[in-house]
Formats: sequence, structure tokens, C-alpha cells
Amino acid sequence: VDHFADRLLDAIEAKGSPVCVGLDPSMEKLPPELKHLPPGEAIERFCTGVIEAVAGIVPAVKPQIAYFERYGHGGVAAYERVCRLAVQAGLVVIGDVKRGDIGSTAAEYAAAHLGNTAVDAITVNSYFGADGIAPFVQAAAPAGKGLFVLVRTSNPSAAAIQDLADAAGVPLYEHVAAQVAQIGAFCVGGRGYSAVGAVVGATWPQQARTLRQIMPQQIFLVPGYGAQGATAADCAAAFKSDGTGAIVNASRSVLYAFAGQSDWKAAIAQAAKAFAQDIRAALK
Amino acid sequence: VDHFADRLLDAIEAKGSPVCVGLDPSMEKLPPELKHLPPGEAIERFCTGVIEAVAGIVPAVKPQIAYFERYGHGGVAAYERVCRLAVQAGLVVIGDVKRGDIGSTAAEYAAAHLGNTAVDAITVNSYFGADGIAPFVQAAAPAGKGLFVLVRTSNPSAAAIQDLADAAGVPLYEHVAAQVAQIGAFCVGGRGYSAVGAVVGATWPQQARTLRQIMPQQIFLVPGYGAQGATAADCAAAFKSDGTGAIVNASRSVLYAFAGQSDWKAAIAQAAKAFAQDIRAALK
Repeated sequence: VDHFADRLLDAIEAKGSPVCVGLDPSMEKLPPELKHLPPGEAIERFCTGVIEAVAGIVPAVKPQIAYFERYGHGGVAAYERVCRLAVQAGLVVIGDVKRGDIGSTAAEYAAAHLGNTAVDAITVNSYFGADGIAPFVQAAAPAGKGLFVLVRTSNPSAAAIQDLADAAGVPLYEHVAAQVAQIGAFCVGGRGYSAVGAVVGATWPQQARTLRQIMPQQIFLVPGYGAQGATAADCAAAFKSDGTGAIVNASRSVLYAFAGQSDWKAAIAQAAKAFAQDIRAALK
Repeated sequence: VDHFADRLLDAIEAKGSPVCVGLDPSMEKLPPELKHLPPGEAIERFCTGVIEAVAGIVPAVKPQIAYFERYGHGGVAAYERVCRLAVQAGLVVIGDVKRGDIGSTAAEYAAAHLGNTAVDAITVNSYFGADGIAPFVQAAAPAGKGLFVLVRTSNPSAAAIQDLADAAGVPLYEHVAAQVAQIGAFCVGGRGYSAVGAVVGATWPQQARTLRQIMPQQIFLVPGYGAQGATAADCAAAFKSDGTGAIVNASRSVLYAFAGQSDWKAAIAQAAKAFAQDIRAALK
């Protein structure tokens, strides 16, 4: 099987920009023609339209399962179908599930989200430490799939927990980063990147520069661009000088760019193009 | 609406022991008569039997959603029905979902797991900090529901992350505990406990004693008894001297106590009784 990191780098090069569109479908924000449908069907149709609109433009999509779980098991069925459709459209699919638990339970989550679901990678929570991450690695690596472990999240409160510094002044997120680098060293692909990547919020560019040094083999999944306030220049801090090593996600700023326009798919495609171009320009 | 903490304390008093049975249904471990069924149906029937067996003995059950998600959206549908059945059986239901994300996404998880699902409380991950927890509090408190926020998890690797100490020697889990105490102070019930509780593993009794001091208004959900190695004496550290303030969970040691016996429900009921008695005795 192909190594996840190699496959992701190839996809980024083929599309020409290291960007990912997040699939966060909210009923309240859908195009008028979809709002009257039952929620499961409405969010699935919307995501189908988004996938069609962006498949030729971006290398990856990131379905956020919370927006599907919101509608119960019917929403989860829609999540499963949307993931499959995105894989069929040639996109790298990152299931944003942020699961985490003790080892035996983490193994069940790994079987669910890496084994049964058509994704290339998932996001994983780091609070349980190494034995909570190991079952995900064991499920992902042999299957050519990947992980993005939460290191530095993009939200305002992140600092109150993740900046806690030890006696030597080293903050928690650097400790977590060192653990991710260590775990990830066992599954490095042909292009020098591990199947175990890291989530590093674009809203913290200074921290991203330090983390880039601590985790040279990790691909960073970078949320926070657009609606959360980070600029393309902020995102650039997550990349190496050769322009590799990260993929930037935008969700709301692309998905809901159609406001007031009748051709919502065209508006989304245009917003995805502008996003890809903005990131590409910042890396020059 | 009744306050979650008041309702839980009443249920504990009515049943006479502060214990909870975890519903972690693994296909491989089910009674032979269920093993031939399709997974979704098999785990639902098993949980139905467990609920019937323990409803007269214990105040609460804790369905672990990972074991249901394992079987895709059909498993999630089984989770929803099992939660409803447990509520109908008069049990306090704690959905062990350990969700956590940035605020806007956390609001979707809260709507899913506190709004749409028949549970009394859920578990929540703390790595995102206060703005990732707030949407869960906002959904839970007005509905008379509760939360248990991860403070100190029961797994061996917990220490590598959660023991990280600041320059004053205060470890991360105490900082998280102080945040939980602060957030929880806004929703304290008539009996002095907050709707926002904490997960504190029984495998760390020394830490539990300190946390008991930092979080006087939090009910502790205590995993780790039985299969994970903690004893009833270890669990006692999570309680106040009046015997209130915590609920101890056992999953595998009760669920799979039937090994080799044909009447699996009777064996599970007997194991639940022994578990309840063991914890009651340790609190005397």
C-alpha cells in the first residue's frame, strides 16, 4: 500500500496548492434549495455539491463528523457516504473525528474510523498520552493511512491548557510535539514525512515556527484560516522553506461563500480557487 | 427540571452504592447465543440484557460509544436505542463520548449528544480549554443534564502528559481541575454538587485525594476499577468523608463475568452486586 504522507504530498503537487476544504455542513447555512429537505439528506447533498465543486481545485477535504453526528445515526450514515464519495472523486479525505481514549477503547475507535470508514486519515486527541495514540498508529500505518494528533489547537482558550510551561520553561504543546515526533519516527514514508502528523493552529504562527523545528517529519494540518482569523502569512509559519510540510484547512470561508448567489457550487469553486491561490502566494 | 447532580445523588442513595456499570459490548466476548447475530443487533441485545440484569442493583450505566461506532451508523443507532432503554429502566445514563473541539464544533457535539440523545450526562475532553467546554455546559445545565470533564485519566500513559508540572511544581491535571471547579461553580445544585463533574481515574489514588480538595463541588466519575487494576480502597480516595462525591465505574469485570456460565444475565447481576458491595464496604 502507498504511504499516506507520500500520497498526500503527491496530491498537493498535482493540484498545486497545500490546501484542504473542511466539510462542516450546518442546516441553517445551506443554500435555500436544500433547506427544506430532511437534515441527513440536505447535508449529504450539500457536501456532494461541495465535493464536485472543489475536486479539481484542492487535494483534500476534511469532513467534520460533529456536523453529521448532530443529526444522529442518519447523520453518521451521511458522513460515511460523503467520505466514500470524496475518495471516489480522487480527493485525500481527512476524517476530523478527534477521538481519544484509553488503549482498549481507542482500538475500537481506530477500527471504526480507520478500518470501516473510507478515509485516508483522521484527527486524534492527545490528552491520554502515548498508549491512547498507539492503537490508532497500529491501525493506520499498515493500511497506508495517516493521523493528525492535536498538538496546538486553533481556539482562543488553547493557551490556558497547552501553554502550561514546566520548570525549564518548556510548554505542554512542545512536550506533546516531542511525543508525536517520537511515535511518528516509526512510520516515515519515501519522501521523509511520517504517517503521524500534527494539528497546529494557524492562529499561533510563533508557536508553529517552534513546532516546525521539533517535528521535522510531521505534516501539519493547519486549521484557523479565514473564519477563525488567521491569514495566509500566518499559515506560512507551518511550512518548511521548500514549501512542503503542511496543509491548510478552510471550512466556513469556502463553504458559505455563496451567500446571496444562486449558483452556490460556482461560488464555492471560486472561493476554493481564491483560497488555494492565497496560500500558494504566501509560500513564494 | 431536576438538577443532574441532585438526581444522581438521589439515585445513588436509592440503590445504596455509588457505582456505575459501563456498557462496552465487544462482539468477540458476547455470550454464544448472541455471537451469530449481525453486530448491531448482537450488541444491542447484549446491552438490553445487561440493563435488565443491573437496573435493580446499580444507579447508573455508562454506554461507551466507541464500542457502538465500531459498527458504523448501525452501531450508533444501537447506541441511541440502548441509551433510551436505560433511561426507561430508571437508570442514570452517562454517555461516554469524550468529545472535544473548538467552540463552534463543540456546540454541534453538544446538540448531538446532550440534545438529541437520551442521556443524563456525557464525558468531555479538556485539551481545548474553557471555550471548548463552554458549549457543553450551555447545552447541559438548562436541560438538567451533566458533564464529566477529563481531568486525570486511568490509563498508564496519563502521567506523561497530565503530570507535566509548572515552575511552582503544580501539575497539568491540577490546573485542569481548577478550571473545571471554576466553570462548574455556575451550576451547583441543591445538594452542593455541580452539574459539571470530573473524570478521575481510580488507578491514581494519591492524585485523587489532591483533586478532591481542589474540586469540592465536583462529582468524580471514577474509571479503572477491576480490569484496569484499581481496588475498592483505591476508589475510596475519590470520595468525601461522608461517602458522597463520586461514582465508580466497572465495565469488563461485570459485563464478562459470565464466562463459561449459561445464564449470563444472572452472572452479570451477581457480579454487579459484588461490585456494589465491594465499593460500599470500602466507604464504611
